Amino acid sequence: MLHAVIMAGGSGTRFWPESRRSVPKQFLPLAGEQTLLQQTSARCRPLIPAERQWVVTNALQADLAREQLSGVPGARVLVEPCARNTAPCIGLAAVHLLHADRDAVMAVLPSDHLIQPDAVFREALATAQSLVQDDPRRLLLFGVRPTYPATGFGYIERGAPIGNATAGAYAVATFREKPVLEVAEQYVASGRFYWNCGIFVWRADRILALLEKHEPDMHARLKSIAASLGTPQADGVIAAEFPQMRSVSIDYAVLEREPGSVVLEAPYTWDDLGSWQALARQHGIDEQGNTVIGLHRGVGTKNCIVRTSGDHLVATLGLEDCIVVHTPDATLVARRGDEEAIRKLIDALRERGDERFL
Amino acid sequence: MLHAVIMAGGSGTRFWPESRRSVPKQFLPLAGEQTLLQQTSARCRPLIPAERQWVVTNALQADLAREQLSGVPGARVLVEPCARNTAPCIGLAAVHLLHADRDAVMAVLPSDHLIQPDAVFREALATAQSLVQDDPRRLLLFGVRPTYPATGFGYIERGAPIGNATAGAYAVATFREKPVLEVAEQYVASGRFYWNCGIFVWRADRILALLEKHEPDMHARLKSIAASLGTPQADGVIAAEFPQMRSVSIDYAVLEREPGSVVLEAPYTWDDLGSWQALARQHGIDEQGNTVIGLHRGVGTKNCIVRTSGDHLVATLGLEDCIVVHTPDATLVARRGDEEAIRKLIDALRERGDERFL
Repeated sequence: MLHAVIMAGGSGTRFWPESRRSVPKQFLPLAGEQTLLQQTSARCRPLIPAERQWVVTNALQADLAREQLSGVPGARVLVEPCARNTAPCIGLAAVHLLHADRDAVMAVLPSDHLIQPDAVFREALATAQSLVQDDPRRLLLFGVRPTYPATGFGYIERGAPIGNATAGAYAVATFREKPVLEVAEQYVASGRFYWNCGIFVWRADRILALLEKHEPDMHARLKSIAASLGTPQADGVIAAEFPQMRSVSIDYAVLEREPGSVVLEAPYTWDDLGSWQALARQHGIDEQGNTVIGLHRGVGTKNCIVRTSGDHLVATLGLEDCIVVHTPDATLVARRGDEEAIRKLIDALRERGDERFL
Repeated sequence: MLHAVIMAGGSGTRFWPESRRSVPKQFLPLAGEQTLLQQTSARCRPLIPAERQWVVTNALQADLAREQLSGVPGARVLVEPCARNTAPCIGLAAVHLLHADRDAVMAVLPSDHLIQPDAVFREALATAQSLVQDDPRRLLLFGVRPTYPATGFGYIERGAPIGNATAGAYAVATFREKPVLEVAEQYVASGRFYWNCGIFVWRADRILALLEKHEPDMHARLKSIAASLGTPQADGVIAAEFPQMRSVSIDYAVLEREPGSVVLEAPYTWDDLGSWQALARQHGIDEQGNTVIGLHRGVGTKNCIVRTSGDHLVATLGLEDCIVVHTPDATLVARRGDEEAIRKLIDALRERGDERFL
């Protein structure tokens, strides 16, 4: 059966001041009335019903995740005792899935991306599932056809077509780390490269077998956890074993080491909502190039993104190429293109002890 | 005796969103802990004690004025039934002063300017008073030596020195309206021009005599008011006569028509606090050229003015040459130099019915 493993443990800072340590991006309604997590869950149904959805998050956000999924009875929330990157996270989910379904196929889904349309996404998942059923050893990755020479994503180079070429499936030739601009431009021009969007489909037993091969210590700890599931000791074993696992991504732990992965060209549109700039892509721009969400009045305002909450007014005069985000206790005004500096700002807040804004 | 007539009826929009229709600039603590009105009153004492201070304001702001002057027992609040520019305002004050003191000399003082140091200002007022006592016909104006070719002020050209030249008193040669930049530059270069800062000293009976000469209708109405003072009919007569007076400035009604005014060079520093830019002049700038009042954290922020209220944080990234003002219900983000556009913004708010922000 196909299960969704929705990874909701992230704690990014790129949507500060709206996202905070306790309420990161995936728990915010950044594109519509539902939060990104809720949208991710809804997007899978009915292909993957609630009872086969597993949300992995951390202790700080578990209550929030349960609250946001209260309308999805049956969905399971798995809690990581601490952050250990994606390999331990996926391993933990895999042993839970196998405990419930020894033939589980897992679709690993980030909870903080925007994917449209939902029906096309479900069709793509079904295609991926059938490719895995054709060959249970397959590790399947979705690749997004690049629309610009992004330097913030890893790339997947495709090789020979797999099976029926119309399905858009190819052997993975190489994985490439985030490139510099010049290299990214070559990738885009070649037509053979995809963005790695972090969406994977594989059998739970297969990924565990590969963790055993490439990360034997991690696998041994996962095996202890697996043996404890269904017993009163499970939580204790997870609390003891999980923090000792190596913090490593599934890409590095398995995908880049194990030949034979398959990339499936994503037929859906994908946006990682990597910064406030994404609002302009998702909400569109008006005649002056502005994207406005909330109460705004402007004079001579161009190419700005303005987001305000409640009935607070943001007024802009002669402002160009800026991002203004108002929240009840903090307001951000940033030049567009400088959003990477948000990290520096967060560091500065932490250093100065401004904990309440983090 | 010397009386202070503090004009506090203004309703400027230049400090929006902090200033509002109901709480204009003079009622805000824009430079220190006291409001500008409170500072204006305090600046006159002890030369002009509270019982010789008269604050002229409008009905909307009378309660606020009384509240802010609650620490100044004895100060009188005169209420204009409606806005009629400075000539009727000064005329109304003059008849009140004469009712209390037939030898009253009035110092007409805007309530929303910043003047320092207080002691030097009082000395200058005393000098002005003595010049008026020397010749009771004199209309005395303070002229501020221009520090840059301002195009937003009227200018006074000085003529021959009056009396003891060391006092810095000169006959007024001409009044000049707000010049274009090129002309302003010539004024500044000549060394003979002053900014008209709207501070006047004259006998109350003299200004009334000149209003009789140049604005006979206005004077007739003031005479009716004068006759009613001390009777139960006074408020009714003011309510009936004042709105019928011509709306005209004292500069246009009298000063520009009547030869023989005297300009006294201001020995104090003066700032009309004409826009948010004034904060940089008054509070100074840091190494990055920023002026910050309130809770601010910035990365790559230069030449900005940031003002925030309470414990709200304003964070700026890569921002240059901007003004950010946060208030509980509205935030302004403006490019420096575009503050004139505040008026357009206010118009836009009015047209769209955003009354609660006006």
